[in-house]
Amino acid sequence: MKPLVLLGTGGGLGRVRENLLALDSSLTILRPGEAGAQDADVALCWNPSPGDLGMFPNLRLIHSIAAGADQIFKDPSRPAHVPVCRIIDPDHRLGMIEYVLWGVLHYHRGFDQMLQNQARVVWHRPGQQPAKQTRVGVMGLGELGRAVAVQLAGLGFDTRGWARRAQQVEGVKTFQLAEFNEFLQDLDILVCLLPLTTETVGILNSETFAPMTKGSVIINCGRGEHLRRDDLLAALDSGQLRGALLDVFEQEPLPTDDSFWRHPQICVTPHIASSASYEVIAEQILGNLKRLDADLPLANQVNPEQGY
Amino acid sequence: MKPLVLLGTGGGLGRVRENLLALDSSLTILRPGEAGAQDADVALCWNPSPGDLGMFPNLRLIHSIAAGADQIFKDPSRPAHVPVCRIIDPDHRLGMIEYVLWGVLHYHRGFDQMLQNQARVVWHRPGQQPAKQTRVGVMGLGELGRAVAVQLAGLGFDTRGWARRAQQVEGVKTFQLAEFNEFLQDLDILVCLLPLTTETVGILNSETFAPMTKGSVIINCGRGEHLRRDDLLAALDSGQLRGALLDVFEQEPLPTDDSFWRHPQICVTPHIASSASYEVIAEQILGNLKRLDADLPLANQVNPEQGY
Repeated sequence: MKPLVLLGTGGGLGRVRENLLALDSSLTILRPGEAGAQDADVALCWNPSPGDLGMFPNLRLIHSIAAGADQIFKDPSRPAHVPVCRIIDPDHRLGMIEYVLWGVLHYHRGFDQMLQNQARVVWHRPGQQPAKQTRVGVMGLGELGRAVAVQLAGLGFDTRGWARRAQQVEGVKTFQLAEFNEFLQDLDILVCLLPLTTETVGILNSETFAPMTKGSVIINCGRGEHLRRDDLLAALDSGQLRGALLDVFEQEPLPTDDSFWRHPQICVTPHIASSASYEVIAEQILGNLKRLDADLPLANQVNPEQGY
Repeated sequence: MKPLVLLGTGGGLGRVRENLLALDSSLTILRPGEAGAQDADVALCWNPSPGDLGMFPNLRLIHSIAAGADQIFKDPSRPAHVPVCRIIDPDHRLGMIEYVLWGVLHYHRGFDQMLQNQARVVWHRPGQQPAKQTRVGVMGLGELGRAVAVQLAGLGFDTRGWARRAQQVEGVKTFQLAEFNEFLQDLDILVCLLPLTTETVGILNSETFAPMTKGSVIINCGRGEHLRRDDLLAALDSGQLRGALLDVFEQEPLPTDDSFWRHPQICVTPHIASSASYEVIAEQILGNLKRLDADLPLANQVNPEQGY
């Protein structure tokens, strides 16, 4: 059996290796420099460097260890004929629901203002409106976006969803690609759960913010590259936006000199929104290894045209 | 028709008067000093002072303008034969759900730690556990407590409820009065939604905190008098509790010199958890005025023995 190779950065790859070996101790899982690694037929990736994927001539499967596969498509050396798969974890969906729910409630109920008021020892009740009058828009209606939108609608929010193709989601008013401006109209809270593709890079920009309610907020759980940072800072300055909850950044960890850290209207979290469990990641990768050997269709394969 | 009299403090009474007159302009609604007020047969109350209620010999109905009636029972001059009613507002239930959900998610996902980390420019992922491993206990299973517990269970939390009498709540493990210690065992988050009665005063104390998980948190949406403040401060000092989200205080507004304001592990909100709408308050009071005149059973009448 050929080895697997771990490509990229971060502590996650090591955790995935541990969990895979716990499930199947016969696996050989190597880092690029290790003896025999060049024979690998499967690459497990988290943010591989450009050129990494081209170094393994026998690849039959490239597997993201996370929900996103955009990091893999950034490597120009990726052999185009090799299938790319990603993780879809139901618990991960629950984690994302929790994160977005916290963020929506945080701004909807004025907890951002109340935390600032506490720091200034001010007893002041922020304006409150019922959920049915708070308009929340979810960009991206994949696994995660749909689950989040359904929960928000269930709590009574005026919930809207936007996706490339027409979709039906219970209790949610949905919009297609060309209806982006109608979707944005008078939003109080905009949630980005889009995959990162050439079409969605920089989609959180001044033009997107303009049709939203004055003093609205954004929550970015997509990728750092979805956001044009100067446009965010300008919108916060002008008051068009009142706040931003950001879990993803172009560079992670977010550099300590990044001005986002110290901006009073930006809430920085360290890419924790969707906490896929390593057990599930290992199980799904192992499932695909077995399918690969049995020549069966792979699970959660990414369409390279779409990038998700 | 006899006048209504407004007893107590705060801006709410004026808003209730406006909304009542908008529904029925023939009503006469007076403050205690005004001419004719002593003939009032209905008192609308928010925190009446001791002695207030005894000044109106013709009272046939005492109506709280909020969910709580404990403030009314504090007046020793209250004529015991006069029925006391309170407000039960479905929207108000939604507001409480939102508040508690925010608080539970805040601690469950470590947002308290992440906000502190941001202030120190530290990228650190707090430990995460799935909702099914986070044990949340709701004290009080009345209108509000039941609604909150059902929502928490729906999000997958290991949800427990405690009430005086045996109750069934879908997806929630319930405990009766005598099972208080079993209920508290290994709780990660304790939510107080109890009415204030002689039995529940000071119930948030060291003995209550002891069986909970080390590093757990409390959320108080009941009354300030439920909490023994020195016990909370000691539990935060010792690490038995890691945080407290408090919406209610013995004195409101919370005095500016209160140490709660500046405690890094206490989150102070200005009694905003349940935002009953003035429209609904006015409608429910008007409904009871009509029932009173038609000699029909009153809605949402308080049992004086129980205090709710």
